Amino acid sequence: MPASPKRVALLGATGSIGTQALQVIQQHPEQFQVTLLTAQRNVALLVEQARAFRPSRIVIGDVSLYAAAKEGLSGLPIEVLAGSEALAQAVTADDIDLVLTALVGFAGLPPTYNAIRAGKTIALANKETLVVAGQLITAEAERSGVKILPVDSEHSAIFQCLVGEALTDIEKIYLTASGGPFRGFSAAQLEQVSLAQALKHPNWNMGAKITIDSASMMNKGLEVIEAHWLFGLEAQQIDIVVHPQSIVHSLVQFTDGSMKAQLGTPDMRTPIQYALTYPGRLVSSFTRFDFTKVPTFTFEQVDRGVFRTVALAYAALAQGGNAPCVLNAANEVAVAAVLAGSLPFHRIFDVLEQALAQLTFIAHPTLDDLYETDRLTREQLATLLLPVL
Amino acid sequence: MPASPKRVALLGATGSIGTQALQVIQQHPEQFQVTLLTAQRNVALLVEQARAFRPSRIVIGDVSLYAAAKEGLSGLPIEVLAGSEALAQAVTADDIDLVLTALVGFAGLPPTYNAIRAGKTIALANKETLVVAGQLITAEAERSGVKILPVDSEHSAIFQCLVGEALTDIEKIYLTASGGPFRGFSAAQLEQVSLAQALKHPNWNMGAKITIDSASMMNKGLEVIEAHWLFGLEAQQIDIVVHPQSIVHSLVQFTDGSMKAQLGTPDMRTPIQYALTYPGRLVSSFTRFDFTKVPTFTFEQVDRGVFRTVALAYAALAQGGNAPCVLNAANEVAVAAVLAGSLPFHRIFDVLEQALAQLTFIAHPTLDDLYETDRLTREQLATLLLPVL
Repeated sequence: MPASPKRVALLGATGSIGTQALQVIQQHPEQFQVTLLTAQRNVALLVEQARAFRPSRIVIGDVSLYAAAKEGLSGLPIEVLAGSEALAQAVTADDIDLVLTALVGFAGLPPTYNAIRAGKTIALANKETLVVAGQLITAEAERSGVKILPVDSEHSAIFQCLVGEALTDIEKIYLTASGGPFRGFSAAQLEQVSLAQALKHPNWNMGAKITIDSASMMNKGLEVIEAHWLFGLEAQQIDIVVHPQSIVHSLVQFTDGSMKAQLGTPDMRTPIQYALTYPGRLVSSFTRFDFTKVPTFTFEQVDRGVFRTVALAYAALAQGGNAPCVLNAANEVAVAAVLAGSLPFHRIFDVLEQALAQLTFIAHPTLDDLYETDRLTREQLATLLLPVL
Repeated sequence: MPASPKRVALLGATGSIGTQALQVIQQHPEQFQVTLLTAQRNVALLVEQARAFRPSRIVIGDVSLYAAAKEGLSGLPIEVLAGSEALAQAVTADDIDLVLTALVGFAGLPPTYNAIRAGKTIALANKETLVVAGQLITAEAERSGVKILPVDSEHSAIFQCLVGEALTDIEKIYLTASGGPFRGFSAAQLEQVSLAQALKHPNWNMGAKITIDSASMMNKGLEVIEAHWLFGLEAQQIDIVVHPQSIVHSLVQFTDGSMKAQLGTPDMRTPIQYALTYPGRLVSSFTRFDFTKVPTFTFEQVDRGVFRTVALAYAALAQGGNAPCVLNAANEVAVAAVLAGSLPFHRIFDVLEQALAQLTFIAHPTLDDLYETDRLTREQLATLLLPVL
């Protein structure tokens, strides 16, 4: 470990990943120094976190909450900023070594992109960034010599299996999926499910958006696209296997037929900590996996006829260009509508299908093209969803 | 891969590991050159192999077979040697980069020791070498800057999981065990088993000695001691978990709670090839693991009350010195007696127990002390086994 602490910026500090990251950091005060904390709206928790971790500055995304943040930290030597422009700027500060981007959705893209350009190591918990702009992000990371460390449990698993290995020796990878609360459901059964059921993930404690994505298996679809960019793999090298116990977090198969897996009790703090401590590891107090408690691992195939999200993600990846951006925007809109109670869960599949069908294809989108694709997709869907909203 | 082929010496070329190693080498003729082949007694196969692979020299262990070997290779530019002295010398030849030691039992020790002193990379398929003389062997390897690459599937699994990781980050390891043909048997049931049953391993295709060791679980006991030396782990850091499907070949648990496993269809050619190609990998045509064919992995505990071999191995490891040498010698004698049909399978446990009870302890044995301990143990057991032999 470094003699001086690693200086960490935490984007999305008040969410599920953000709060767990602070738990990890709290257990290793000599290893880490929090220099930036940001949140979109939860100003009360952000202020509380800032009082505890004493960053150089905080950013509250919603500018209407600036005064509240400022007042909450009055008298403390902590700079208070507000708005997305301030956020995009704050990540480039000199007192940051690593940026953990735990924002939800497309919003994670601009600050992540800026942080990469500023040469910061990225711990990426925002898969939408790579789904939407994988080509631009990975090219920029290569140009800047920046490492992108995955925080998603599946990609962290692959990443851990690849330490010391050559990427060219990968034959294929398997992303494991719990199957979510609706594993084994037929299309007809999915039509009957409630929002409360969709929000009840069997194994993982996560935010609302990703929990719905897990239930629809869109999460796995997004992860396929993310894996393509993170590990330089073709679509046919990326497979999915359903593993309801969520102990095996993903697997790599090498060209010699040997496979490696990363495993453990489902606890997001493990991949978070690994991204923070990479290339080293630090002793943790997380519950260890116990074979006597989970003595059986099972594996099954995804029903791609029912969970059409998976097939759509592979299709968007094959199409390339701005297709994954459309898929992601449509999914964000659909999930928001499901969470608001205005769209039945099973309609997610149709919304995504229709959005991709309406795609105005751009083969090599610039960042501005992607912003525009994202905006247009949301606009089109507003009309499409009007009847149900 | 190297521009010039890796020059390989294959000790025990006609056995299970040896013949499979030659299959691997045959598939990658540009990568490897066989420069030495040795066998104890199977002169016909050794001659056939030498005619195919054209080594610089061969050694036949049994000197009475020298003439047959010489005649079989007459007219070819292949030096023919015989006897254990010649073997110990041959491994030091200049035209050898890597020595694969696939000899069975204590006999593997002298040539392995010599090869290490001569600075050759060791691919170790002879676990008895480390069990008997782990301290001397690892100290000599460190002194000579020699890498010891494990070929045992379990240790290869651990080794593969540790690539790119720090040994100090290991919390513990799990060696997986198929449980052998007598998994779940009671002590009373073990009294009824036949030699034919003991020789029928459910998953692995291996030599006779190791197959009996698997049935008695002594194999796992020896592997615990081997792992201690290979990875510098304390006994309490080495655990065993029974996994009847033999897909997960072993696991490492790190200090952060994360675990890594190496997996695959049971095929000894995979760890053999890995040891030959390390630190790289080479494309193989071995059957890939298929989740749809083995969709369930199960894990259970060893019954150490029934399989007393495991407890005895931990005890010998804890005692240290020449205790593991005694355990190994006793086991070699007992297994030979079982294979000869002169000792009932279940008596292996008693023989090992009695041999350890009769131990004349030497805390820091020299190589000569170990030879003497091995000889004495065999002598004592001859008397002990007289009634049954």
